[in-house]
Amino acid sequence: RVNADRLWSTLEMMAQIGGTPAGGVTRLALSDEDRIARNLLRDWALEAGFTCEVDSMGNMFIRRAGKNPALAPVMTGSHVDSQPLGGNYDGIYGVLAGLELLRTLNDREVETERDIVLVNWTNEEGARFAPAMLASGVWAGQLSEEFAYARMDSKKVTVRDALEAIGYRGERPARAFPIHACYELHIEQGPILEDEAIDIGLVRAAMGQRWFTITLDGFAAHAGTTPMHSRRDALTAFAELALKVEEIGYQHTPDGRATIGMANVTPNSRNVVPSRVVCSVEFRHPQSEALEAMEAALHQAAADLSARGVSANVERIFDYAPIAFDEACLARTENAVAALGYSSKSMVSGAGHDTCYVSKIAPASMIFIPCVKGISHNEAEKILPEWSEKGANVLLHSVLSAAQE
Amino acid sequence: RVNADRLWSTLEMMAQIGGTPAGGVTRLALSDEDRIARNLLRDWALEAGFTCEVDSMGNMFIRRAGKNPALAPVMTGSHVDSQPLGGNYDGIYGVLAGLELLRTLNDREVETERDIVLVNWTNEEGARFAPAMLASGVWAGQLSEEFAYARMDSKKVTVRDALEAIGYRGERPARAFPIHACYELHIEQGPILEDEAIDIGLVRAAMGQRWFTITLDGFAAHAGTTPMHSRRDALTAFAELALKVEEIGYQHTPDGRATIGMANVTPNSRNVVPSRVVCSVEFRHPQSEALEAMEAALHQAAADLSARGVSANVERIFDYAPIAFDEACLARTENAVAALGYSSKSMVSGAGHDTCYVSKIAPASMIFIPCVKGISHNEAEKILPEWSEKGANVLLHSVLSAAQE
Ligand SMILES: NC(=O)NCCC(=O)O
Ligand SMILES: NC(=O)NCCC(=O)O
Repeated sequence: RVNADRLWSTLEMMAQIGGTPAGGVTRLALSDEDRIARNLLRDWALEAGFTCEVDSMGNMFIRRAGKNPALAPVMTGSHVDSQPLGGNYDGIYGVLAGLELLRTLNDREVETERDIVLVNWTNEEGARFAPAMLASGVWAGQLSEEFAYARMDSKKVTVRDALEAIGYRGERPARAFPIHACYELHIEQGPILEDEAIDIGLVRAAMGQRWFTITLDGFAAHAGTTPMHSRRDALTAFAELALKVEEIGYQHTPDGRATIGMANVTPNSRNVVPSRVVCSVEFRHPQSEALEAMEAALHQAAADLSARGVSANVERIFDYAPIAFDEACLARTENAVAALGYSSKSMVSGAGHDTCYVSKIAPASMIFIPCVKGISHNEAEKILPEWSEKGANVLLHSVLSAAQE
Repeated sequence: RVNADRLWSTLEMMAQIGGTPAGGVTRLALSDEDRIARNLLRDWALEAGFTCEVDSMGNMFIRRAGKNPALAPVMTGSHVDSQPLGGNYDGIYGVLAGLELLRTLNDREVETERDIVLVNWTNEEGARFAPAMLASGVWAGQLSEEFAYARMDSKKVTVRDALEAIGYRGERPARAFPIHACYELHIEQGPILEDEAIDIGLVRAAMGQRWFTITLDGFAAHAGTTPMHSRRDALTAFAELALKVEEIGYQHTPDGRATIGMANVTPNSRNVVPSRVVCSVEFRHPQSEALEAMEAALHQAAADLSARGVSANVERIFDYAPIAFDEACLARTENAVAALGYSSKSMVSGAGHDTCYVSKIAPASMIFIPCVKGISHNEAEKILPEWSEKGANVLLHSVLSAAQE
């Protein structure tokens, strides 16, 4: 069993880095806060006698050596970056529980057959740089490094420049190496486990996602002198689109999701009819066919805006297929849950995770713990210490069992 | 008659300051560009032998002395500030035509009975700091200086600090002094004069305006794990509100206007259901009763958003009553138009102007010239040199006739 108090206090230390007044965290990918968090993680790892390597996408690989370096390692980990005004557990819990498991193996002087690699993936959130899971996507060969390097934040800083700026563009190529099994431990970010008072989610699949950037072009006009009927208002066109996108989500309930999280208005001045709105749209669904239908409906809704004299450019920037996790990996976790006497439930993730990309090239699965009211991507995100402990124990057993094979 | 070529080249020189790649201008109130434009205007004034005083709101008063300093002066002028991505004539044309008229009087060695004061009003646009016509409002005793000083831009810089930063918080108190007559020359910013091939608009009234800041509060949630029906999405609530505001505008056609020019989303991340949208709403109408009805409908629309679990705080930040201009002032302009052999038309301004506030304390009226297709608050704003010339000649005759009384 892990040292639950140490894990909890490690989480608390990390929560200082980018901490917000409301008790959340803003630790955007490749920001200064991300750099400080990475340095701290690396220091902890080196202190415990592990090695730490960084690849060309800034992914960090902390390795605890096993007896047999020729065998493929077991991987675990998640991400240190957060949403703007995000929570203290999304991502970072999986990283620090992984660190705790390595420290526990040290404490007990456990020698494993295989190396265990703890990973921190760069830019999982997709908040500063879209899309999400960018660097695990490159590592797993699903996205090109050129594409990833060229992604820009809202201030037009590229991923490549941001990596250099914080000193985390590593030597090692961002390319998959053989992995025996991969486990990611994460908060559910939804309400099911808490509602049903279940300790552990056995994640068997993840929804697909499609992300779009939409640019609506109207014509800037004076708010006082331009009659309603002669406007080409990009903002009211955007409003019409936003309600259609919401409707598309409702048409695919209960599983579908349709969200506009971002919108930027030009010139954004009170007495100017807006000339341009650039916004995001994202759809999620466990079935590819449903995503296809949602995308078609979006194109229709965008085309309909021409009736307002507003043109819409729809660019798909992310097509993330629904995936199923590995049965053998899940079986180890089921055994762990049974051995520890915890309750569990099989579930589908509505969120994307780096381990979805890892599953493209290696056996992988995920472990969820509850979070209060399912609140996530919100400063109010919360877990209880006993949930944290149970998740880390299940991770320990799952990883250890794979590492001894 | 004025020197039309000199006026045109003065306009072209000024267009360099804050000039944009698309040929427009971004010269926000109290920005560095505004400072440079003000300095240039002051240099031109001093060079021609006029004085220049600055008041505590940054309003600039350039004075050409008349024979009788005991008589109330005649005032003309407009504003140097622009919208973001604005045009090259809105405001600045009235200032530089006023300068041209003073220079013409010098050239002809005309002595006037009264002083003529050319004014540059601070923050007319209301783009960087809301509301519009802020400093003429203080000068005319319609807004308090405390209120004005505390207004903040999007980066939380106050008007007071911005005035200090560019060195334009003057000694002289921002308080009205006796004015015999005031004329503001401006582009129409609407299509009527060009459509009807008329040289000059005799502006007899201006629409009222009400400006609001609306804050919509929902709850941030994960875009992937939060089902549609359990969201409290501030952005889709905003979309519903925006379409209602548009509808309110249509319900009051042809005269009414309803516009959302500004909207800012929090946290503005693609995969987060937005927690907050802060937006502007503005209504305009020539009748106060209609404005009253529009405001009531807005409150209803905002309250209706509670069905989405989104609260709406509606703050009215600007209540600008419809006004009628002075008949005697208009009569001098009608005489000028007749003497010069130009065509004219009586009209109502949909835009607000500093001279509306001046009209609260002194006889005042306005003179419009056409602008191409009525395009304004847009980089594509355009006038023809002959329109510019005719407007400046009408201004010269109107002001001169008042200054000799
Ligand atoms: N787990 C998580 O919040 N990932 C961010 C990417 C997503 O929105 O699915
Ligand atoms: N004339 C002008 O564009 N003024 C700005 C304030 C308004 O929008 O009416």
